[in-house]
Amino acid sequence: MTTDYHIIGNYISPYVRKVLVCMELKSLHYTIDPIAPFVGNERFSELSPLRRIPVLIDGERVINDSSVICQYLDELHPRPSLYPADIGDRAQARWLEEYCDSWLGDVVIWGMFYQKGVKRYLFGEEPDEAVIARARDEQLPVALDYLESQMPAEGFLFGEISVADISIASFFRNAAFVRYAVDAQRWPRTAALLERTWALPAFGKLGELEERSLRTPLPEQRKMLRELGAPVSAETLGTSPPRRGVMRLE
Amino acid sequence: MTTDYHIIGNYISPYVRKVLVCMELKSLHYTIDPIAPFVGNERFSELSPLRRIPVLIDGERVINDSSVICQYLDELHPRPSLYPADIGDRAQARWLEEYCDSWLGDVVIWGMFYQKGVKRYLFGEEPDEAVIARARDEQLPVALDYLESQMPAEGFLFGEISVADISIASFFRNAAFVRYAVDAQRWPRTAALLERTWALPAFGKLGELEERSLRTPLPEQRKMLRELGAPVSAETLGTSPPRRGVMRLE
Repeated sequence: MTTDYHIIGNYISPYVRKVLVCMELKSLHYTIDPIAPFVGNERFSELSPLRRIPVLIDGERVINDSSVICQYLDELHPRPSLYPADIGDRAQARWLEEYCDSWLGDVVIWGMFYQKGVKRYLFGEEPDEAVIARARDEQLPVALDYLESQMPAEGFLFGEISVADISIASFFRNAAFVRYAVDAQRWPRTAALLERTWALPAFGKLGELEERSLRTPLPEQRKMLRELGAPVSAETLGTSPPRRGVMRLE
Repeated sequence: MTTDYHIIGNYISPYVRKVLVCMELKSLHYTIDPIAPFVGNERFSELSPLRRIPVLIDGERVINDSSVICQYLDELHPRPSLYPADIGDRAQARWLEEYCDSWLGDVVIWGMFYQKGVKRYLFGEEPDEAVIARARDEQLPVALDYLESQMPAEGFLFGEISVADISIASFFRNAAFVRYAVDAQRWPRTAALLERTWALPAFGKLGELEERSLRTPLPEQRKMLRELGAPVSAETLGTSPPRRGVMRLE
């Protein structure tokens, strides 16, 4: 069994971040191809039938879907386990992960990050302010009310850090990229959990690479990441963005 | 630990079907509230934050998301296990399940079943023929090419029946509802796997309830299902459809 994994996926994706945080917490070695979002050649299509990131390459094996990858890594490297020991808690952790992947994916990524960041800076299109307003002012508060109802008074959701905390913190990183901060008066437990989770060294280490990725034109990202010590692979499955934008998000 | 489970969700949903087949294969007892699709009162919203079906009620515990529910039931009742023993195979089974849940959900459910069945017969709207044509003639053939590449020459995908076979067979049941049959000349392994999986008694038993559900107006469904011996609960979280249609699908 190898622990030299390869990840295809950019640091700015919350789905990639989930997997990388899991790998960091498990001290797994990996290389990464920080393929530009919405880019990817024919080989990428072969590896990722839905053209999604991340993809995990483990020797001959190709694993798709961030949730599947996290579970796979946890089964191969069970310490520390990122899934609660209790079967019911484990189901709830997986549900919260799914809630993030699907609903925060819609609201935070497509409704906010894509509109304010990707659309303008990669595709040169104007954001749809009505979509942003609906996501930020209507949908996200409802989601935060729900998450707040699930949050612990202290510590992590299920005692030890789990895939649920990691998922929630990963998605709200992308909200932070577009200057959205969770109101700690209104959702105090959620805001505190985010702070606790982001304070983990794994999130801190990735945070620098994310921030710099957002501020570096795509053709220069690999060089920049390498200079920061990121384990960037020599080969890539896609670098050319539709437009050489720098995401100066505000 | 109780094995008296309760399921909220209609027999015509492929996500509900996945869970029910798992329960049948594990000989678990359950009651069901065959809540009408796209219906559900306030209590349903509390139990299902994204207003999706199925929901599993296990005593005090509420479990959302069909994939989470199947995994939960498998961990509580591991025989027969519906997840392959090998960690890599297990990841692949989960990926194929996710492929069905997300992509066949888009193509088969939203692109075909919703258009040809639900839209017309529940909402009284005309199907969008362009959406149907794209799903049936462009997207589904690509999906079938991919699935065919994963299929075994005989038996099930990972030897014993698993959540992957169940997922694929569940989604293609809904394609069959709108008279779509997988071309056995073009995709022989997939067509054969579907036949093998549908031949399981669990699928057969549910099949009768599905067919009759499609042919019975929603207000009469509970009575009809009870007469057929289905374990329909006394209480319901939603029965009133927008329109009292019978889905005579063609």
